[in-house]
Amino acid sequence: MMARIGFIGLGRMGHAMSRQLIAAGHDVSVYDINPAAVQSLAALGAAGADSAAAAASGRDFVVTMLPNGPDVEETLFGAPAVAAAMGQDTLYIDMSTVAPEATDRIAARLKAQGIRMVDAPVGGTSEFAERGQLLILAGGEAADVAAAMPVFDAVGRETIHCGENGAGTRTKIVNNFMSTALNVLTAETLAFAEAAGLDVQRTVKVLAGTTAGKGFLTGAYARKIFAGDISAEFGLGLASKDLTLALIYAANLNVPLGVGAAASQVYQMAKAEGFGGNDWSAALETLRRRAALPEQSFS
Amino acid sequence: MMARIGFIGLGRMGHAMSRQLIAAGHDVSVYDINPAAVQSLAALGAAGADSAAAAASGRDFVVTMLPNGPDVEETLFGAPAVAAAMGQDTLYIDMSTVAPEATDRIAARLKAQGIRMVDAPVGGTSEFAERGQLLILAGGEAADVAAAMPVFDAVGRETIHCGENGAGTRTKIVNNFMSTALNVLTAETLAFAEAAGLDVQRTVKVLAGTTAGKGFLTGAYARKIFAGDISAEFGLGLASKDLTLALIYAANLNVPLGVGAAASQVYQMAKAEGFGGNDWSAALETLRRRAALPEQSFS
Amino acid sequence: MMARIGFIGLGRMGHAMSRQLIAAGHDVSVYDINPAAVQSLAALGAAGADSAAAAASGRDFVVTMLPNGPDVEETLFGAPAVAAAMGQDTLYIDMSTVAPEATDRIAARLKAQGIRMVDAPVGGTSEFAERGQLLILAGGEAADVAAAMPVFDAVGRETIHCGENGAGTRTKIVNNFMSTALNVLTAETLAFAEAAGLDVQRTVKVLAGTTAGKGFLTGAYARKIFAGDISAEFGLGLASKDLTLALIYAANLNVPLGVGAAASQVYQMAKAEGFGGNDWSAALETLRRRAALPEQSFS
Amino acid sequence: MMARIGFIGLGRMGHAMSRQLIAAGHDVSVYDINPAAVQSLAALGAAGADSAAAAASGRDFVVTMLPNGPDVEETLFGAPAVAAAMGQDTLYIDMSTVAPEATDRIAARLKAQGIRMVDAPVGGTSEFAERGQLLILAGGEAADVAAAMPVFDAVGRETIHCGENGAGTRTKIVNNFMSTALNVLTAETLAFAEAAGLDVQRTVKVLAGTTAGKGFLTGAYARKIFAGDISAEFGLGLASKDLTLALIYAANLNVPLGVGAAASQVYQMAKAEGFGGNDWSAALETLRRRAALPEQSFS
Repeated sequence: MMARIGFIGLGRMGHAMSRQLIAAGHDVSVYDINPAAVQSLAALGAAGADSAAAAASGRDFVVTMLPNGPDVEETLFGAPAVAAAMGQDTLYIDMSTVAPEATDRIAARLKAQGIRMVDAPVGGTSEFAERGQLLILAGGEAADVAAAMPVFDAVGRETIHCGENGAGTRTKIVNNFMSTALNVLTAETLAFAEAAGLDVQRTVKVLAGTTAGKGFLTGAYARKIFAGDISAEFGLGLASKDLTLALIYAANLNVPLGVGAAASQVYQMAKAEGFGGNDWSAALETLRRRAALPEQSFS
Repeated sequence: MMARIGFIGLGRMGHAMSRQLIAAGHDVSVYDINPAAVQSLAALGAAGADSAAAAASGRDFVVTMLPNGPDVEETLFGAPAVAAAMGQDTLYIDMSTVAPEATDRIAARLKAQGIRMVDAPVGGTSEFAERGQLLILAGGEAADVAAAMPVFDAVGRETIHCGENGAGTRTKIVNNFMSTALNVLTAETLAFAEAAGLDVQRTVKVLAGTTAGKGFLTGAYARKIFAGDISAEFGLGLASKDLTLALIYAANLNVPLGVGAAASQVYQMAKAEGFGGNDWSAALETLRRRAALPEQSFS
Repeated sequence: MMARIGFIGLGRMGHAMSRQLIAAGHDVSVYDINPAAVQSLAALGAAGADSAAAAASGRDFVVTMLPNGPDVEETLFGAPAVAAAMGQDTLYIDMSTVAPEATDRIAARLKAQGIRMVDAPVGGTSEFAERGQLLILAGGEAADVAAAMPVFDAVGRETIHCGENGAGTRTKIVNNFMSTALNVLTAETLAFAEAAGLDVQRTVKVLAGTTAGKGFLTGAYARKIFAGDISAEFGLGLASKDLTLALIYAANLNVPLGVGAAASQVYQMAKAEGFGGNDWSAALETLRRRAALPEQSFS
Repeated sequence: MMARIGFIGLGRMGHAMSRQLIAAGHDVSVYDINPAAVQSLAALGAAGADSAAAAASGRDFVVTMLPNGPDVEETLFGAPAVAAAMGQDTLYIDMSTVAPEATDRIAARLKAQGIRMVDAPVGGTSEFAERGQLLILAGGEAADVAAAMPVFDAVGRETIHCGENGAGTRTKIVNNFMSTALNVLTAETLAFAEAAGLDVQRTVKVLAGTTAGKGFLTGAYARKIFAGDISAEFGLGLASKDLTLALIYAANLNVPLGVGAAASQVYQMAKAEGFGGNDWSAALETLRRRAALPEQSFS
């Protein structure tokens, strides 16, 4: 089914996504502040618009893929306003990565105008976008997410409905929080290995086969704290002892391990709270309490 | 081939390992400061010794599995000394997790007495030990590691020769550094998700499918920095921007993310160093330089 | 000399400052979104205005004291715009604490309209404001800061001209960075002392007499790194050793010391860089380099 | 009153202290593993001993000033043992900086032999030692500290009795924890100021006049939380907001502020705990609770 789609924001990601939409046979009108980007897509069959509002007018779907939240808000509500150009039948899809507070403001403001919205930031680099293989993290009404599938199918390999409006944005932020921090933890670990005189690739092979490389989400946490059980599979106190041993050794080697040192403080708090003899996954409960989330009790 | 093995240190791990050695048909003499542990293994066929030195006397292999480095040094060189009880034909295997400096001191002191040593701390919990499924991280001469295989095969599922004496200990410490810190990062991420109002299990499903859950070792790093290429697959500056966005949002939610905040500082340093437009794996090069490792150049 | 002053933003701070201006004999017109605040100042002799623009019209000085940067920008450039109500003779003074980027945008935009500005955030709590004892951190042309002195003298005990436009805001942010972080460091130190079994007040007495309590700015740094001399008065390597000793002890006590642990990483970097035998103030040079500031050389 | 003093450990600090004791007219016997140090003091009137035990024999006071705890324990209890050379009338004074656990072990072991001990690490650099101007932090029985005053008076300007055995060591560690971390916080602040384009010395002048430079111990904490009052003088939520503002600005400047970022997490925890509207000194109560210290209640 061919849809009429307005696409605003033709950077590296947006350009590739627009091309996928054109290739999928949709009727795509495009706009960017950079005229060259508009022209190159017009050459591929898009209708080049001379304003964001023009690109958004009379469309089934309007998609924005912009650098940040202020850009999105200015585009929607500035002059000429995209929000005013969209009709009641238009489904607005923001695929930018923005602050959750911005997504919430935008969704509320559009709702007051009777316009439906899906926040749908993407996972994956521009190379994934080139191949229509992005991961779509969608937030909004189930019916709206379902309605947006022609768009998502053209640009992504998988769409996950994360919850109500704002849940797509929040899931993206939480996901990238973990990946960007894990990058630094990985770098600290390998710099540490090298400073310790180890063969780095041999060490990588070891790490890849243990919890260090395989992670906790579908293994250690699933077996223990997600199952309501924090009896020790690997004791939190022992984990803390191993981490302290590592930090002392690294201090002797003059290797900065700021991420590891910060992690160590959570173990201290967890031990002070009485979790030393429990499973190391109880660190989650310590942090939940610190964030004022309701205390969980364990059998 | 049946071996004569002295086993010193019968805590939860050591007890399970001794049982595997007995079950594999070896001649095992055992010692622990806790007589009950000795007796329970004697009931299974071990020869109970009344001192560590006695357990070590006339053995092909002497294994120690003790709580920490000072315990190992006291056992080896205190009175009566296990080091004195071992003959030139004995291969000493320390499977305890100790500080690398302690392993180095011990290996040097034994070498001066003509005694060969393998440091071989283990990966895996006591449940792995019960099933003979530990991961053995061995450091020492290749011939000595090979000679120790009858012991390792009985208690482990895989033995990795990590390098010279001390490399087993160092690999264990580096591995557990990463896993214990990753535990806290995982906990921060999930507390963050919950505080953001997300469904935690749905979020876990997303994370498990991205770099956040799959890690960098065999994917992102292998494709980029390990291959000497730091052109941007995912730009370090963008990663930094996403992390900052997450930290600002978490500050509004009153969620403490100490690990993430520490990671953020490494991105600042990497950007100040000029890596903002490179691949996010360039964080490793920043940390390598901080630890005074030789600068790598990239094509 | 009596001045005509428009004052916008009558929260706890702004209300107290307006009263000081009235008490000093100035002609003050006031506005706040909260009518009660306007009325209570009208009762003290101010002219209550019914919009920010009205309060700003025909004034020698217009002062804003608002919660954050977006509030200031909205007040100045929203509708009705304070910026439009100010004449070419009006000196605009922003005493709010805002992001430096916001101050820069505001100053540039006003300059384009021919309006002069001084950014002048304040130090001191509302109790200082009640007594006209604030510290004024002013950024702008010297002539403009001089012109604003009737306002500053009424509300402050001291005005420091920090530099060009934006320097007041930046100095405030840097100052509060240090004080807010020092608060946590102080709290960590005292929780540590108590957990160590020490009498806290006796410990406070000791700390107050050493560098811990007296600080580095006018003592240790002035004698050493500010003087271009990093020969060791107290060796950086020894400082690092003491900090590591403290962190290990705190780990045994289960006291979280995140600030101290983060500080420790800077010592590792400084030692890796070769400053271990230099004065501990060389930590500044390490951080300067990390921020890509030009390397300083030392005799 | 002339005392017979054995002094063991003649590094930079110990050498200077020994000279002060000789200059004060005491009968000083000295020992160090470095014979040159012994000879240079013998030339000044000390009795050079050829072992630590010999230096300790028949003395009123035996002082150790050694690099670390293991050195002290080896000297006291190794062979030949200083502990055995001391008589029941000897007062043993350890002025080294060692781990508290080591001090406790040493004190207990000497007590079992009937030997009294004062732990008395010092504050101040070797230049203070040269002038007999050290700060003495003494732990032990009041009578023993009083008895040791002839020694302390010769080397120090002030002696503080910090509590029972171990309290001197603990106070030293807590003091140096704060000073070494404050050094890094100061360095972060000044690198931040410079990266922000501020004149560093002008900024130092500002900081020196505010809480940032003057500290909390005798000011903000004394007025508020030490007095059992956490009503807001400066609100914790506002402090947190200022710190977050600073961290965001620093992120834009690529300045790493690891200490500040770690401090920020404590504010998040304090706000989650409900202290956002209280005085910023309530950060202490948050950290006290995290360390499992008894909750304090406030009026």
